[in-house]
Amino acid sequence: MAAETRRMKVGFIGLGRMGAGMAARLIERGHDVTVHNRSLSKARELIERGAHDAGRIADACRGEAVVTMLADDAAVEDVVFREAGVLQSLPREAIHVSMSTIGIALADRLAAEHGRAGQRFVSAPVFGRPEVAAQGKLSILAAGPGATIDACMPLFDALGRQTLRVGEKPSGANLIKLAGNFLIASVIEALGEALALVGQAGLERRAFVELLTATLFSCPAYATYGALIIQPASGPAGFTVALGEKDLRLALRAAETLHVPMPLAGLIHDRFLRLIANGGEALDWSALGHLPGEDAGQARAV
Amino acid sequence: MAAETRRMKVGFIGLGRMGAGMAARLIERGHDVTVHNRSLSKARELIERGAHDAGRIADACRGEAVVTMLADDAAVEDVVFREAGVLQSLPREAIHVSMSTIGIALADRLAAEHGRAGQRFVSAPVFGRPEVAAQGKLSILAAGPGATIDACMPLFDALGRQTLRVGEKPSGANLIKLAGNFLIASVIEALGEALALVGQAGLERRAFVELLTATLFSCPAYATYGALIIQPASGPAGFTVALGEKDLRLALRAAETLHVPMPLAGLIHDRFLRLIANGGEALDWSALGHLPGEDAGQARAV
Amino acid sequence: MAAETRRMKVGFIGLGRMGAGMAARLIERGHDVTVHNRSLSKARELIERGAHDAGRIADACRGEAVVTMLADDAAVEDVVFREAGVLQSLPREAIHVSMSTIGIALADRLAAEHGRAGQRFVSAPVFGRPEVAAQGKLSILAAGPGATIDACMPLFDALGRQTLRVGEKPSGANLIKLAGNFLIASVIEALGEALALVGQAGLERRAFVELLTATLFSCPAYATYGALIIQPASGPAGFTVALGEKDLRLALRAAETLHVPMPLAGLIHDRFLRLIANGGEALDWSALGHLPGEDAGQARAV
Amino acid sequence: MAAETRRMKVGFIGLGRMGAGMAARLIERGHDVTVHNRSLSKARELIERGAHDAGRIADACRGEAVVTMLADDAAVEDVVFREAGVLQSLPREAIHVSMSTIGIALADRLAAEHGRAGQRFVSAPVFGRPEVAAQGKLSILAAGPGATIDACMPLFDALGRQTLRVGEKPSGANLIKLAGNFLIASVIEALGEALALVGQAGLERRAFVELLTATLFSCPAYATYGALIIQPASGPAGFTVALGEKDLRLALRAAETLHVPMPLAGLIHDRFLRLIANGGEALDWSALGHLPGEDAGQARAV
Repeated sequence: MAAETRRMKVGFIGLGRMGAGMAARLIERGHDVTVHNRSLSKARELIERGAHDAGRIADACRGEAVVTMLADDAAVEDVVFREAGVLQSLPREAIHVSMSTIGIALADRLAAEHGRAGQRFVSAPVFGRPEVAAQGKLSILAAGPGATIDACMPLFDALGRQTLRVGEKPSGANLIKLAGNFLIASVIEALGEALALVGQAGLERRAFVELLTATLFSCPAYATYGALIIQPASGPAGFTVALGEKDLRLALRAAETLHVPMPLAGLIHDRFLRLIANGGEALDWSALGHLPGEDAGQARAV
Repeated sequence: MAAETRRMKVGFIGLGRMGAGMAARLIERGHDVTVHNRSLSKARELIERGAHDAGRIADACRGEAVVTMLADDAAVEDVVFREAGVLQSLPREAIHVSMSTIGIALADRLAAEHGRAGQRFVSAPVFGRPEVAAQGKLSILAAGPGATIDACMPLFDALGRQTLRVGEKPSGANLIKLAGNFLIASVIEALGEALALVGQAGLERRAFVELLTATLFSCPAYATYGALIIQPASGPAGFTVALGEKDLRLALRAAETLHVPMPLAGLIHDRFLRLIANGGEALDWSALGHLPGEDAGQARAV
Repeated sequence: MAAETRRMKVGFIGLGRMGAGMAARLIERGHDVTVHNRSLSKARELIERGAHDAGRIADACRGEAVVTMLADDAAVEDVVFREAGVLQSLPREAIHVSMSTIGIALADRLAAEHGRAGQRFVSAPVFGRPEVAAQGKLSILAAGPGATIDACMPLFDALGRQTLRVGEKPSGANLIKLAGNFLIASVIEALGEALALVGQAGLERRAFVELLTATLFSCPAYATYGALIIQPASGPAGFTVALGEKDLRLALRAAETLHVPMPLAGLIHDRFLRLIANGGEALDWSALGHLPGEDAGQARAV
Repeated sequence: MAAETRRMKVGFIGLGRMGAGMAARLIERGHDVTVHNRSLSKARELIERGAHDAGRIADACRGEAVVTMLADDAAVEDVVFREAGVLQSLPREAIHVSMSTIGIALADRLAAEHGRAGQRFVSAPVFGRPEVAAQGKLSILAAGPGATIDACMPLFDALGRQTLRVGEKPSGANLIKLAGNFLIASVIEALGEALALVGQAGLERRAFVELLTATLFSCPAYATYGALIIQPASGPAGFTVALGEKDLRLALRAAETLHVPMPLAGLIHDRFLRLIANGGEALDWSALGHLPGEDAGQARAV
């Protein structure tokens, strides 16, 4: 199937830990990629691998589509709405593929403004940590007009193991992504509390995680975070506390607008604020799962 | 392997939804079972299938082992410590196999009192809803002296798909069982909040559950409770709100004794109290997952 | 002292339940007041009492000062920043006295923009329900440059029983106001839980409130809200659930920006969302104190 | 009035920080007091001031009444139900005045057992820290048969500033006491969060407390705990974290039995567990109010 894939001319804006791997995958799979990043150093490696260099945002907006993969709402707003940004530079009918985890309100605004400019818009946030992105095995949630998503499939096939279509309204994909990240964070909180209890009783925490993942909880979320919680924080963060705080904040914003009380989301968000206030914003977000142990007098989380 | 299984003479006390299926499995697999239940009607069917009838508790305590599978601490305390109860009736060296989900303090007391009486004790709580029990596919957590657990293996092989040994101290198995039930309830709470959000936004809740269970949450807990939450409460409860409240209460008691703050456990326990106070104690405990929707103005949970 | 009070020429924008009483007080105490309100009907009564009629916002901005007393951030932003709004209309050196309960970020923005325009700015949010406002007995929190507050004292003397200066940075007054409203809501939540417990035990709730206010809690907050909670919701709201939700939201926004986890504020905010989602946005915010009783199976709050 | 007070022969069991001051007051006011305490040293000072020495519990049970003022349920159970304890030693018609803060279930049991033994029972828990007890200015909540309370009035007049009768059922007084302590702890939590926010914004915390206590919160609870929170923990604890944990636990037990979800009580109880788990059980319970600041990266609470 890969053999038949249409080669696309595409811009890629945002070469962080996720974006760099994703852009590399697009190049690898034969797409004509022009990259743009605030700091040049990250772009260099990709240019060596065949990417074109976009000095300005506008240079990344000359193809059929431009992908944005940025840290937060503010970064996306800046890149899209600034003078000579994506909105002003993208040709009519070209597609903005927003793959960042952003809020519902911004996704709605992007859909409206691109529509007014005669451009097309797809929200396509992803599940998967950086190593998964680099392997092209992300799970992609795509929302927007069917034909627009069809047009993006060559890109999604390069980036993901599967693309799930979740409706015509772009912000729906963002809501689902935020709900999904809330569920992962809930796993971390729940495991953190359970492991604090089991550990305090003098039982073997690793055996407990093995038991769980051998039975009712035999899925990646429990295996990954069970393993991360029972060891002290270390190594580069796959996904930082700062990003976790941001995603829970955006989920709570959506919940607020829709009048949905989410007490567990609130509890988790407070935990992230506590980690940040105590200097832990760059830790892997599994540090959330160390707080129950800290509160029980075990090792400190930050 | 089943062919070589040693046939045991065993008493079985407690024929509720779980116990009835378990006792039937023991009979089916060739064990010599004497059943006792507060109300006779439940025992009758098992007697027709070959069980002996124990009019008094003492009659169920004449074999190598007696299994208790009762609703709560009070029921176990009554059966064990009353005049002519298990403690007074069981021969020296015979084994009390406590398979109920009980508290840590009671498990410690049972271990101590049986020890003083020259009897043996194993804590062996189980994971699995009634239909799983009836199929002999429970997951059994066994804790106690190795030789005592060895002696119980013919029973456990009849009842469970797997038996996990979790240490020499009986109450350790109970703590792990309580931590496990807390984790399942956490899944219900988290799914309930996420589904309330997704539903309030007008997105398809069933598709959301399918997406989850196709990716990071591809395990029984999410499939089972996702399906239960998106339909209104109905049918007989596999596991009631009343039992859920009890288990979370016991988990919190253990946490309290060990000085482990568990805010998520507290949140869930309050939810169960709310369901009970509003007449929902006999509902399936997945009703917990309907409360976030009720709070968001969707259908009422009770 | 009133005799010596300097008579000021002042605009007043926002004639809701609080603003109408405040503007009336200013007229009564001899100030030259020009009122503006979105809907004319509310202005009419004040005009009969001697106010001038400002058809447009600009007409209310021709004096030494203009007071804004509006429902939320959006209303203030609209009135101030729109074409021909307060910012464009107010003369240099004239003072914008912002008495609404608004967020920290907006207060900071107002200070900055008025500064750039050569105008002066004071944040002066108030404590007191509408009946207190009408009597000129508000407690006023004023923050801004000392000389600017001095210049506003004739207004504050007409409106308040006391004016507390809380620093030079205007948004400080807003933060303190939000923290104060959080504390009042905390009283409602705590009393609601305590009264649900006491009532469920069959004890006399009124006697309990009397006992509290006769001893450790002999202050207006407990007397007012204790009385409101033990009776069913009725009468016009002194302060609505919708406003309560807004204030807790703004407090949580400030807490988020400053990285201060406030779990009790989160709990209360979720309660307000629940009331709104179930149709209770126009109730008096003491309805918050009915939710613990509802959760205990007593009367429904909404 | 004191002149007419009837002189009573009374035993006093429990000479902790509260009990010592109370027993001293009884002596001072002319009662014939026999004291008993686990450790003799505390009794000595009172004996020098005129108390009789009760080597055994039974020796303190020979008068018209015996007062118990002990740390927790376990201490009361031990003193009352042990061999040669209060229950076995007290004459028929004599009164057990239980002034400790104990749980509802124990109070109900005491009432029942003393009734069966032909003795009388009054629950009379108190509000007030040790220095208030020593001055005889406690607030006493008395519940039990009217005539029995009447008979105790000479004691209550010596100990308290006021005696509030709260019904015929003794445990009602304990429930109200627990609800009251929950309300005080709620003040500490709410002030702790508000002060963390105000402090993080760089505003003057002391001025904020002064503002509160000058307006809506002009009552002892806010003045006392506002002052304690803004200074680091120091000096002897008036009321320890360990006792606070105990009282919140008993309130939650009552709430559980009555099916009343109390999320704020749960939040506070978890805070106390956290303080204890980190070595803070002997701190003054106002340390609860330092945790929000710790979570915001300010000074550590323990």
